[in-house]
Amino acid sequence: MIKITLKDGSIKEYKENITPYEIALSINESLAKHVIGAYQDDELIEANREIKVSSKIELVKDTDPVAIEILRHSTAHVLAQAIKRLYPNALFGTGPNVEEGFYYDIFISEGFSAEDFLKVEKEMEKIAKEALPIVREEVTYKKAKELFKDDKFKLEILEDHKDSNLTIYRQNEFYDLCKGPHLVNTSLIKHFKLLNVAGAYFKSDAKNQMLQRIYGTAFFTKKDLDDYLKILLERKERDHRKIGKELDLFFTSKEVGQGLPFWLPKGSTVRRVIERYIVDKEISLGYLHVYTPILANVDLYKKSGHWDHYHDSMFPPMDLGDGEMLVLRPMNCPHHMEIYKNSIHSYKELPIRIAELGMMHRYEKSGALSGLQRVREMTLNDAHVFVRFDQIEEEFKRTLDLLTSVYEDFEIKDYSFRLSLRDKNNKEKYFDDDKLWEKAESELRKVLTNYGLSFFEAVGEAAFYGPKLDVQVKTATVMSETLSTIQLDFLLPERFDLTYVGEDGKNIYRPVVIHRGIVSTMERFVAYLIEEYKGAFPFWLAPVQLKVLLVNNEFHKAYGESVIELLKENGFRAELDDREEKLGYKIRESQTLKIPYSLIIGDNEVTSKTVNIRLYGNQNQYSLSLDDLLAEIKKLNKK
Amino acid sequence: MIKITLKDGSIKEYKENITPYEIALSINESLAKHVIGAYQDDELIEANREIKVSSKIELVKDTDPVAIEILRHSTAHVLAQAIKRLYPNALFGTGPNVEEGFYYDIFISEGFSAEDFLKVEKEMEKIAKEALPIVREEVTYKKAKELFKDDKFKLEILEDHKDSNLTIYRQNEFYDLCKGPHLVNTSLIKHFKLLNVAGAYFKSDAKNQMLQRIYGTAFFTKKDLDDYLKILLERKERDHRKIGKELDLFFTSKEVGQGLPFWLPKGSTVRRVIERYIVDKEISLGYLHVYTPILANVDLYKKSGHWDHYHDSMFPPMDLGDGEMLVLRPMNCPHHMEIYKNSIHSYKELPIRIAELGMMHRYEKSGALSGLQRVREMTLNDAHVFVRFDQIEEEFKRTLDLLTSVYEDFEIKDYSFRLSLRDKNNKEKYFDDDKLWEKAESELRKVLTNYGLSFFEAVGEAAFYGPKLDVQVKTATVMSETLSTIQLDFLLPERFDLTYVGEDGKNIYRPVVIHRGIVSTMERFVAYLIEEYKGAFPFWLAPVQLKVLLVNNEFHKAYGESVIELLKENGFRAELDDREEKLGYKIRESQTLKIPYSLIIGDNEVTSKTVNIRLYGNQNQYSLSLDDLLAEIKKLNKK
Repeated sequence: MIKITLKDGSIKEYKENITPYEIALSINESLAKHVIGAYQDDELIEANREIKVSSKIELVKDTDPVAIEILRHSTAHVLAQAIKRLYPNALFGTGPNVEEGFYYDIFISEGFSAEDFLKVEKEMEKIAKEALPIVREEVTYKKAKELFKDDKFKLEILEDHKDSNLTIYRQNEFYDLCKGPHLVNTSLIKHFKLLNVAGAYFKSDAKNQMLQRIYGTAFFTKKDLDDYLKILLERKERDHRKIGKELDLFFTSKEVGQGLPFWLPKGSTVRRVIERYIVDKEISLGYLHVYTPILANVDLYKKSGHWDHYHDSMFPPMDLGDGEMLVLRPMNCPHHMEIYKNSIHSYKELPIRIAELGMMHRYEKSGALSGLQRVREMTLNDAHVFVRFDQIEEEFKRTLDLLTSVYEDFEIKDYSFRLSLRDKNNKEKYFDDDKLWEKAESELRKVLTNYGLSFFEAVGEAAFYGPKLDVQVKTATVMSETLSTIQLDFLLPERFDLTYVGEDGKNIYRPVVIHRGIVSTMERFVAYLIEEYKGAFPFWLAPVQLKVLLVNNEFHKAYGESVIELLKENGFRAELDDREEKLGYKIRESQTLKIPYSLIIGDNEVTSKTVNIRLYGNQNQYSLSLDDLLAEIKKLNKK
Repeated sequence: MIKITLKDGSIKEYKENITPYEIALSINESLAKHVIGAYQDDELIEANREIKVSSKIELVKDTDPVAIEILRHSTAHVLAQAIKRLYPNALFGTGPNVEEGFYYDIFISEGFSAEDFLKVEKEMEKIAKEALPIVREEVTYKKAKELFKDDKFKLEILEDHKDSNLTIYRQNEFYDLCKGPHLVNTSLIKHFKLLNVAGAYFKSDAKNQMLQRIYGTAFFTKKDLDDYLKILLERKERDHRKIGKELDLFFTSKEVGQGLPFWLPKGSTVRRVIERYIVDKEISLGYLHVYTPILANVDLYKKSGHWDHYHDSMFPPMDLGDGEMLVLRPMNCPHHMEIYKNSIHSYKELPIRIAELGMMHRYEKSGALSGLQRVREMTLNDAHVFVRFDQIEEEFKRTLDLLTSVYEDFEIKDYSFRLSLRDKNNKEKYFDDDKLWEKAESELRKVLTNYGLSFFEAVGEAAFYGPKLDVQVKTATVMSETLSTIQLDFLLPERFDLTYVGEDGKNIYRPVVIHRGIVSTMERFVAYLIEEYKGAFPFWLAPVQLKVLLVNNEFHKAYGESVIELLKENGFRAELDDREEKLGYKIRESQTLKIPYSLIIGDNEVTSKTVNIRLYGNQNQYSLSLDDLLAEIKKLNKK
């Protein structure tokens, strides 16, 4: 007999080799129907794994978040099985889960495209209906080599696992090298869809052969799958890359470099309005804006810790041959520490708020790059506030107030707060000083609690130098994405030996640094706004705010031009459409370009010195005198 | 007898071995007194060199620009001779001319500092008085090795000239390896000064030994020397590095990297005002502002020609390991070509004016770097205008109008125009296409002539891709410096295969590109302005425009704060000085910081709701109501 400790703490005795499914059955039958797997101590196992020793067992039901990962991983195996049946010569790379689904890398000599999805999905449904048991087998390296002798990719993968305990999962004629766990039967796979196929190098290495990566997803219920497919449609429609192209906002060029967007004039206008808005707002709140170099000697990042903890995301250094080994900065922090260090500071001066719209470069794998959303060159709205320990709470409050006010201006309503903590076991990602971490994390938790903020905690999401408060927004297409962040840092002040002069005249006191970014990078923020607004920017952000449409070029042009002149003088972005086109065509185009105000000018308007207004997305029209128009639109501009 | 062709074209016969001095003497005695050397065909020779074959001879007088170079080079030898007399163990690197003077690299085991200048200058004067003849001697490599056997540096220099025709110049006990030419006698050296001493690596290589580089200068007249020393004083006083430090405008950090300035909050404010001013002005004139990446694949620069002609000024490329070989851009041109290429353009759309405040990186030797003036990272006010051939003239005119208006706003008055052409013989610097060059140069000359612009020409100052009009400003400390530039480019449109659709609907017509920069880089422009304004920025540029000084903190603070509030609401940069200091101290400090308006507030002002105004650099005071103050200073801000 073995002892099983259940989640509620109760301990029961079972015969050896009992399975999680059988344990569930012993509790009640309906529970057993929903059991997908279990945690045996910390290891995730399948529902039919035999338990050989006394253990803590936490059953995983189909509603638990991890269950869907087991489902999707098994669906990936079924995908591979279907492929093998349809293309007997197919070879296989790896087939892991990804966010929202799974993929499998496959080599099919005759080629493969999305048009083949239907055929493959049919075969997958067939395999599901065959209700094949999925069986785990432990194998030796030698046995595994024999099993996969016809698949050169699998053999190469095997070379990386010579010393591991190898397992395969088998369902009828198909077997795959895999750590598992899996469902116990293919019949549990009911609601899935293949989504996409793209080229991918074997082992993500451009020196290797190109395989075809087939993406798919799976859910436990039809409703979940349908909802998800609806979100995908919405994403497609709101995709900032698509809208960015339609509205001439930006483009990227493979020739110039991946992840290096070009902002076209209209996208640049949106960006410039945001940049000036946030800079002016920060300055009005006492921030000191600076410009600092985007390069630094590698030694600076050795000192800051980036070299140890953030190296993979940095660009390669450049040897200038004169003793300088420069690297593009991945963050602005060390430069702002240098600004602080440039002069002596009194306790009376603090908080000192150093802000910058600073360019940074981060190395992302080319596969991860996407439009403005994931890039290699970015400009961050960033600030480092140097405070005394007793000022942390007040400054946090001020920062949250700023954040709330900015979110209001951009109409961002759906957000929550996440307290991001370090993962104690990840010594590579986080600097190693338990005392400093505990001080920072407990201080931050205290501040948030005192502020009355409701937040949830996430381990392993902290920056390498300290814990942070992340503001998670729910977007039209994503459940949760970090937009803003406020971080508490006791480390960099140590590393850079920052001090201030206390009341006693001694320059030995250590400030604390609050890192904060409100509108994140210009790239990511504009990508986010494009998708949220579906390209229909509010008046104050629109690249063209007003378009003047002439009914007849000959008779109405002079007045139209005077209206444009007036609007421009008052700082508005206005354009005249005096092309030889029908009015209806001009109105439709103005709507397609999502211009907030279309001002139609005909005989009436010229005579009465008015404009006829058609707002974007609105069928109604109304007339205003020029003075009333100015008064109306002045209210729409942010200060 | 040999035939000598003089500058006026006349040909005279002389005996063999006649010298330039003797030729001058044969013309008239007073001319001979002023002859310093001569061009024998294209070679510059000394006044006593014997002419052995029939030649074209152009006498060089002491008023000719090149004469001073001969004088200075001889002065450098006299410096070395004096050093050798005073420090018999001294060793010598090289001693060339530089702009405005000369230096000699010297190794003195007991060390050397500016305090030793007087002693050395005395010895130099002695050598001049000794009136030593300076004699040229041709020597073999073997003989030279023998002559310099005690000087390891000279021996190493000799190794680089094994195959050359070697010459030494000898004056009494001193001789130096040198190509010459030189004065004929040390007595001609009368007006000189040692200026500076700094460490310099032998052969400018950090792996070599550090020598002491002694800088000096020399002139033919005492007045010229005195005038120059006055300019040096002025430069010192106006030095933007000194003022930049005093006014907290910027700093550089050796630790972070040379030539990478940090803009402090006050310097950043000046920069931001300039940036917004020029961007807004350009947009109002129809320029389309963009943001483009500061990196590109090396191939882009191979295509543009930068890789061939501008490589030495570029940073080393970075291999991202995924097929991308990125390099920091040294210019924005190729990126703007990509913007143009991103869509199809009709002849009706041209001119298209693409503008950017774009960051660039250029490799400059560390010795050349200086404050904001010479840097490795810079942000350029740049635009590329794509025009039809028939629009060149009109667009040039528009650009010159913009330039004139900007110069007025910055109070830049003393400038002239330089037509910069290629040096036909420099195939390395300039792309090789005679036809294209001739077309571009003649078109540009025609445009300038039609515009009625008075300009001078300079060969070898063109960009590698085309001729340009440079605007040369005379500053408080420099006779001539390029501030703005307008360039005509037929090459890049070819290289990038740019086209527009003509009236016939065919997309085969080639636009011309006008490159133009008005306020140059933010770095250089602000360095220039600091020196021109001596740190006293005009009201619209001043980091702090108004400072409110309270006579008594207790009684006047509330009113003072309301004044600050009012000023800030109206967009002015104002600060309150409420420190516990005497009024006199506060006023003095406000003047030291060169703040345009000091507003003094005491009982009277509180009662009458006025401010007492003290302008920077002005002893008079006057009072204004707040409304009148606002009206006065609103006029001082540029739009």
